[in-house]
Amino acid sequence: MLFSSEPFDVAVVGAGHAGIEAALAAARLGMKTACFTINLDAVGNMPCNPAIGGTAKGHLVREIDALGGEMARAADAACIQYRMLNRGKGPAVHSLRAQADRVQYRTYMKHALEQQEGLQLMQDEVVSVETENGAVSAVTTAIGACHPVRAVIIATGTFLGGRIIIGDYTRESGPDGMAAAGPLTESLRALGLRLQRFKTGTPPRIHRRSIDLSGLELQRGEEEIIPFSFDTEQPPENRAVCYLTYTTGRTHEIIRANLNRSPLYGGRIEGVGPRYCPSIEDKVVRFADKPRHQLFLEPMGLETEEIYVQGFSSSMPFDVQRNMLHTVKGLEHAEIMRPAYAIEYDCVDPLELRPTLETKKIRGLYGAGQFCGSSGYEEAAAQGLIAGINAALCLKGEKPLILDRADGYIGTLIDDLVTRGTNEPYRMMTSRSEYRLLLRQDNADERLVPIGVRVGLNPPERGARVRRKYEQVQQEINRVASVGVPVTDALNGFLAGKNSAPLKAGCKLIDLLRRPELCYADLAPFDPDRPALPAVIREQVEIRIKYAGYIDRQERDVEQYRKLQSRPLPPELDYSAIDSIRLEARQKLNAVKPLNFGQAARISGVSPADITALMIYMETRWKGGNA
Amino acid sequence: MLFSSEPFDVAVVGAGHAGIEAALAAARLGMKTACFTINLDAVGNMPCNPAIGGTAKGHLVREIDALGGEMARAADAACIQYRMLNRGKGPAVHSLRAQADRVQYRTYMKHALEQQEGLQLMQDEVVSVETENGAVSAVTTAIGACHPVRAVIIATGTFLGGRIIIGDYTRESGPDGMAAAGPLTESLRALGLRLQRFKTGTPPRIHRRSIDLSGLELQRGEEEIIPFSFDTEQPPENRAVCYLTYTTGRTHEIIRANLNRSPLYGGRIEGVGPRYCPSIEDKVVRFADKPRHQLFLEPMGLETEEIYVQGFSSSMPFDVQRNMLHTVKGLEHAEIMRPAYAIEYDCVDPLELRPTLETKKIRGLYGAGQFCGSSGYEEAAAQGLIAGINAALCLKGEKPLILDRADGYIGTLIDDLVTRGTNEPYRMMTSRSEYRLLLRQDNADERLVPIGVRVGLNPPERGARVRRKYEQVQQEINRVASVGVPVTDALNGFLAGKNSAPLKAGCKLIDLLRRPELCYADLAPFDPDRPALPAVIREQVEIRIKYAGYIDRQERDVEQYRKLQSRPLPPELDYSAIDSIRLEARQKLNAVKPLNFGQAARISGVSPADITALMIYMETRWKGGNA
Ligand SMILES: Cc1cc2nc3c(=O)[nH]c(=O)nc-3n(C[C@H](O)[C@H](O)[C@H](O)COP(=O)(O)OP(=O)(O)OC[C@H]3O[C@@H](n4cnc5c(N)ncnc54)[C@H](O)[C@@H]3O)c2cc1C
Ligand SMILES: Cc1cc2nc3c(=O)[nH]c(=O)nc-3n(C[C@H](O)[C@H](O)[C@H](O)COP(=O)(O)OP(=O)(O)OC[C@H]3O[C@@H](n4cnc5c(N)ncnc54)[C@H](O)[C@@H]3O)c2cc1C
Repeated sequence: MLFSSEPFDVAVVGAGHAGIEAALAAARLGMKTACFTINLDAVGNMPCNPAIGGTAKGHLVREIDALGGEMARAADAACIQYRMLNRGKGPAVHSLRAQADRVQYRTYMKHALEQQEGLQLMQDEVVSVETENGAVSAVTTAIGACHPVRAVIIATGTFLGGRIIIGDYTRESGPDGMAAAGPLTESLRALGLRLQRFKTGTPPRIHRRSIDLSGLELQRGEEEIIPFSFDTEQPPENRAVCYLTYTTGRTHEIIRANLNRSPLYGGRIEGVGPRYCPSIEDKVVRFADKPRHQLFLEPMGLETEEIYVQGFSSSMPFDVQRNMLHTVKGLEHAEIMRPAYAIEYDCVDPLELRPTLETKKIRGLYGAGQFCGSSGYEEAAAQGLIAGINAALCLKGEKPLILDRADGYIGTLIDDLVTRGTNEPYRMMTSRSEYRLLLRQDNADERLVPIGVRVGLNPPERGARVRRKYEQVQQEINRVASVGVPVTDALNGFLAGKNSAPLKAGCKLIDLLRRPELCYADLAPFDPDRPALPAVIREQVEIRIKYAGYIDRQERDVEQYRKLQSRPLPPELDYSAIDSIRLEARQKLNAVKPLNFGQAARISGVSPADITALMIYMETRWKGGNA
Repeated sequence: MLFSSEPFDVAVVGAGHAGIEAALAAARLGMKTACFTINLDAVGNMPCNPAIGGTAKGHLVREIDALGGEMARAADAACIQYRMLNRGKGPAVHSLRAQADRVQYRTYMKHALEQQEGLQLMQDEVVSVETENGAVSAVTTAIGACHPVRAVIIATGTFLGGRIIIGDYTRESGPDGMAAAGPLTESLRALGLRLQRFKTGTPPRIHRRSIDLSGLELQRGEEEIIPFSFDTEQPPENRAVCYLTYTTGRTHEIIRANLNRSPLYGGRIEGVGPRYCPSIEDKVVRFADKPRHQLFLEPMGLETEEIYVQGFSSSMPFDVQRNMLHTVKGLEHAEIMRPAYAIEYDCVDPLELRPTLETKKIRGLYGAGQFCGSSGYEEAAAQGLIAGINAALCLKGEKPLILDRADGYIGTLIDDLVTRGTNEPYRMMTSRSEYRLLLRQDNADERLVPIGVRVGLNPPERGARVRRKYEQVQQEINRVASVGVPVTDALNGFLAGKNSAPLKAGCKLIDLLRRPELCYADLAPFDPDRPALPAVIREQVEIRIKYAGYIDRQERDVEQYRKLQSRPLPPELDYSAIDSIRLEARQKLNAVKPLNFGQAARISGVSPADITALMIYMETRWKGGNA
């Protein structure tokens, strides 16, 4: 017997990284929101690496923060070691990564949800989504409650139809020994959604005392910590260290000798795994001539001795895992506390989704996170935030929020998913962005705080603060552009010391700053009127001056891109009737139903010739008064 | 394919309250110990009330501490509000109870296990116990590992064959959304163990903000906190409050009107539930004329808004739970975060166990905790400690540790279970002890620290410290017994103020102290040479003097009791052949196989006449040179 609760505006199915942001955003935008989870003790759980950020993922976290999401603040509250990756490379690929105390992160996130006004967090399994006239009307739960709702966001992660695999052991299960979710899969399928079956894997956790650390490379956190959130005032502290070790030839031998016992190679896993977070057996098979692979030993938290073996994902039988581990330097006697395992789960084909993350088939039904075919906490959180915002905006009758590829990595991620689809868990990478030099982690606030203000997630003061920051940057750029530097022996001596050509005539300070070998701080002695500016401002000044040429070029690319983006396509257009387009392209276009020419052009299988044909078709149609 | 690990001395199946103490004790006594858990994130989980201690349970915690267990220390690290219950009554029933931060408690306990030398904590489900020649030889796990062992302690709590029930919703599951344990039941049955099916239940958790606290009774912690552990030096602080409210006539009406939908009354629950922690529907049915029942609102921790509704256990359908809750003062709009549920599980008939907690049928196989038919964290921890100690002592070839009913509540608990059995989850109560006045929470250290030293869990210094403490107590008693008090106007004035008879002649200080209306502190002005003594010493002096009569009497009772206890019975005696005993008694005696006449006499169904007959039989047998 079903019992009907009072109505909610939005129901979020899942309190993982996606569900958390979705629920918080919807509630903060005034929606009466229900958030369901299978296990109230695992809100914001990290079933894989105990870390937030990383290459490209760090960008996502800062963008989430700039838009008004929670992940960065939680990370700053719970992280115990910070590093800025790729410091040796250009600022486009600098990425923050931090080790998290996993228990503390969960505690923070659960409490954040609990404290959010208008948000009800409930432990209960959603078993079906009900619809009326093609729009969602309710969700029903395992214990027999029916909650009338106006929008539903599915953020079920790896729980839906979850099945874990270790060698020939397999069991229906969510991650970390939690119960899997069952019936919702059938309900979604009945609504006409195309589902896929993906898999991912995680490495073993081992006991710290069983590691011989003596010969391993120590990885400390960075001295000067940059927090994730632009609003974190008290910078976090490094309170833990990591270690680096490597697989050996012997490890690879054992893997090769046991490939017949690998469920991946033995065919026992049907789900498609992520190419970019491969298992160790994958790596050994695919990069057969690599003599060794890096493994990072990362603490799972401050109050635990569990160590995560990053890089050692596996679904090998337990005995093989053990033997493999014991061939790694420092891990000769490693005690496994949790075995490595793979997990298969049901997710949606993201081509079913619009760029708002609403499904095309059911009004008010959204997807977010691993459910949409991605992998990773940050990818999940980014989608959750966008889905939560759009569900709220839609219910309020406001314009949707669609970030484009030039707005940030979030836009790129979602555009990739809904335009190109994916046949393996999708992971964010800097190479996926065409506008990397514009979409830096350091300027996410400039790019997205104003959008967060417009949407209503950021208070106006935050917008004003960011405006002031970038005004200061511009002022300082103007100043160094006008300050003259006379030729002096001291200056030329300094330049010689930096292997920089000596000045023959006076120049502007900015001319010196443009030289790659000179930096803003070094030039202080020759810039007596320099104002005292915070580090973040000085950094911006430097980047903008040094990379001005590249930045300009990418800005022109963006203009081009946005031209195509601004030419809309009717979302319900039937491409099958357009004979001037090749058949394959017509099918692809019909599958995606792009919202504009830009999106259409990015569909794989759609050629520039097809786009030209489509343009001609649309112009004729428009002239015929048909559009 | 099974893979064989290196051998362990002891395997503990479970890292709940029983498993934790068992594993720590075994490892501390030098055994190479493996501890298995289904979920490494829920070590020391509190699936029911977020509190440690309570009437009689507080005694158990202090006894565990005195013997060298961990629970008291964990509680002092994680508790956020302390109270000494029953202060209005005599010292025998004073019991400590404290609210715990559930996440902090788990974190502490997991870390304690991880840090214990010689102990390996592993997430893996044990699926069978292997034996050779009637003794355990190995455990095998779900992921295909076989661990050779010399002793196994089963502490599976409510996980074995776990099934949760909410109205007509039921699902195979452990507590708190964790996976249930499956195959081990069959393995134990195949070893010949008699299993039972019990059930227990838990109330809903609700959101703090949804409670109208304004009209509720506030329950603060006590100003002067007495910690659980005798060794806690920095007393914990009160950092949370509780509230008291009541069910109403309307609540009871709703329950009565929906009894047909209760799985308990509708017959859907086969397991036997605890009479002493009844569900609210039980209470309403059994105490039909009680107009209301107390409900305590207890925080689940510091960093959460979840509130536990103590006293409101239920397995009613979710809609009924909601309606019931909403009739309670202050809970009119309560938002349920976790529904109440009942759980059924497999456990062993404790008559299968010896007082060491070893099974009678399989050498080296022990049981502890909820698995042995008890209920409660403290009951579980107490058994875990004894099972862990005995497993280690046995493997070391040392004498077992059997606490008797006069040693403490732990002895009483285990003697009750293994002598009388139980057909419902057994809970500790002060009324179960015949020697309550001797077995106080305040003197658990005197009673059990020396035993902990002898066994090897307490360092000798701890024993010396306790000896010094009680020497001081005795010295002070001797002093007040010899100090004379002259008759003065001041004294008689003071006595009059206390409604105490005036002195006609001088007396000893101890004579005044014996008067119930006078206390040690009050008499300070008339005791000028009184030494400055710590509160714990003063308390002992006072109790020992005031209750001397009762204490003496119980000490004589104990002598009697121990006389019978010291008359051994051969554990393999076949009672069916002793015609002089009644048939029923013979069967019961055969089922229990008591170790001595004391235990035999406590078996229900065995009469004093049967005992006399048995004594005669044994004497004849002994004289015949047969024993
Ligand atoms: C084994 C494993 C390996 C991984 N490997 C990688 C990796 O290599 N690289 C990487 O970047 N990331 C990896 N991940 C990370 C990770 O799973 C996700 O990418 C991330 O957690 C996704 O977040 P999410 O919010 O989409 O889902 P999750 O964090 O999984 O959260 C799902 C939430 O939905 C709830 N839920 C599900 N179904 C229901 C229902 N029917 N009713 C109510 N609640 C429901 C759950 O209780 C949970 O709260 C791995 C995860 C696992 C488990
Ligand atoms: C719904 C509910 C209601 C309760 N109500 C009450 C009450 O009214 N009053 C009261 O005093 N107490 C109550 N309790 C408290 C409680 O269950 C127990 O009394 C206490 O937790 C028992 O401790 P334990 O160590 O025996 O088992 P648990 O704390 O349950 O721990 C069992 C451990 O065994 C592990 N495990 C089980 N099977 C396997 C296996 N095959 N392989 C590996 N690991 C395994 C689990 O992972 C877990 O670590 C309730 C508990 C529940 C769940």
